[in-house]
Amino acid sequence: MVKVAIVGYGNLGRGVELAVKQTPDMEVMGVFTRRSPETVKTLGAAVFRMDELINYQLEIDVCILCGGSATDLPEQTPEITHHFNTVDSFDTHAKIPEHFAKVDAVAREHQKVSVISTGWDPGLFSLNRLYAQSILPQGQTNTFWGKGVSQGHSDALRRINGVADATQYTIPNTEVIEKLKAGETLELTTRDKHFRECFVVLEAGVDAEKIREEIVSMPNYFADYDTEVHFISQEELNQNHKAMPHGGTVLHTGVTNGETKQAIEYNLYLGSNPEFTASVLVAYARACVKLAAEQKFGAYTVFDIAPKYLSPKDVATLRRELL
Amino acid sequence: MVKVAIVGYGNLGRGVELAVKQTPDMEVMGVFTRRSPETVKTLGAAVFRMDELINYQLEIDVCILCGGSATDLPEQTPEITHHFNTVDSFDTHAKIPEHFAKVDAVAREHQKVSVISTGWDPGLFSLNRLYAQSILPQGQTNTFWGKGVSQGHSDALRRINGVADATQYTIPNTEVIEKLKAGETLELTTRDKHFRECFVVLEAGVDAEKIREEIVSMPNYFADYDTEVHFISQEELNQNHKAMPHGGTVLHTGVTNGETKQAIEYNLYLGSNPEFTASVLVAYARACVKLAAEQKFGAYTVFDIAPKYLSPKDVATLRRELL
Repeated sequence: MVKVAIVGYGNLGRGVELAVKQTPDMEVMGVFTRRSPETVKTLGAAVFRMDELINYQLEIDVCILCGGSATDLPEQTPEITHHFNTVDSFDTHAKIPEHFAKVDAVAREHQKVSVISTGWDPGLFSLNRLYAQSILPQGQTNTFWGKGVSQGHSDALRRINGVADATQYTIPNTEVIEKLKAGETLELTTRDKHFRECFVVLEAGVDAEKIREEIVSMPNYFADYDTEVHFISQEELNQNHKAMPHGGTVLHTGVTNGETKQAIEYNLYLGSNPEFTASVLVAYARACVKLAAEQKFGAYTVFDIAPKYLSPKDVATLRRELL
Repeated sequence: MVKVAIVGYGNLGRGVELAVKQTPDMEVMGVFTRRSPETVKTLGAAVFRMDELINYQLEIDVCILCGGSATDLPEQTPEITHHFNTVDSFDTHAKIPEHFAKVDAVAREHQKVSVISTGWDPGLFSLNRLYAQSILPQGQTNTFWGKGVSQGHSDALRRINGVADATQYTIPNTEVIEKLKAGETLELTTRDKHFRECFVVLEAGVDAEKIREEIVSMPNYFADYDTEVHFISQEELNQNHKAMPHGGTVLHTGVTNGETKQAIEYNLYLGSNPEFTASVLVAYARACVKLAAEQKFGAYTVFDIAPKYLSPKDVATLRRELL
């Protein structure tokens, strides 16, 4: 059995605990947290203090790092890769090359394997962009996200003075997707591809119109989109807008022989974003441990890993059953 | 530049010639044929007699084998892999393990790389079955083909006494696909998943009703399906039913946390089946040559090849642009 340590226990860490339960070949050794262990309620996994991690090198095959990309992972992944094989979901696209270089150096020096930036985007969506563009070089790739909750945009709403709580949905323009699939060539702006819908709970006595204006004009987050804002009660938000669905589409449309239309479409429909992301992390944790067993040390992304490494089945069985 | 030999020049071989033209890093060295070279009309590639192939070992990096799975490839792939790196689209699912073993032995002995059974099914669809099942082990995978022309079923129609020509379309049951995507769990029979539609040209004086009966009751090909038969003229068949569109869907529906619904869907919409299949072969021919350069000799399927090998771009560029 592959023994997994879960480092950090929010929604993603809990998703990893759930995902490991579904595998025939992996088990959770424990959860490691910066909080007081007795305050962390898992689904059964033992909880340890983060500073104890180093004492369990013999009991752990791979650490799945479930912290955030803003401050946790840039520090944690290189640090923990000194002592363990690691998997993370670092998703600050612009900083991936830097993160990769840092982790790769540590992994090679300390004979570890680290799979960085996995999940669904970066991750499965990246894979589909790569396969599609390699197969149909004369073509155009578009990625659409949603319908789903964007944590980053929800957080941006909650940082506004006068907003008590909020949930933001990213909504893809399905009309545009259908036109592309029908073979139309479109010049698409940011505004054409997605809408944004916000459900906002106001603090008492706040001017709703002022808040709406502040939201729709917020640079980077909302100014470039058509944004709809609904003011609702905390009760309604709690009841209808606290789930974490997400998903999206990678659509590559191309031509062969100058004008023969060909299209490749990859869709995800996710009831829970963190539980799905966690499931991807767990499959790549299996790959990570296999690569370490083959002494192929260093940092990896989804681009570097042959698909067979993700499966609990041996490759002869895969050829027989799935090819 | 990677130098490609095209072995066999039917629709697939012609598709390979077209696909190589779209790449920045590959070129066609020539076409090798069992026909008289002067009777083969290419899009510009030089044509050679098949028995000359052996004389061009220094001019060829990889042979893309464009023969059929019934009789050509079981012989050709092992034979040609004695002297060349090879890529084939062997698609007799039940015989893949045997084909793999035979080609692998030759490739290892003669220090060559052979990528077998690539294309879209087996190939890209197989990849999607593997990724999806590895990520959501508690789930169900269904593959749907079409709407598109099945050469095998069209050939079966043409073998019937009294049939002059015919085209058969495989049509997926989109209602079933939508139900699965909505999270329903269905027990599906062969009849539930696909319909078959036949456009048939009769020879003069043939009893149409007798032919229709013979078609819809034909074991393996039509008996297990709801099959519609249309009798049309050769002119109408030539005008409307000689294109080779195809496509299909791999749909994996699963759960996390016992009941949270998650779905992964991969769709292909292909204006030309042979041109698309050829585009996949060409991307894997690039991978084949890279693997040979790394001296990783042996037989491979799509399961064994890290995605980065398919791209003409280096992996640092891929991380920056596509991850």
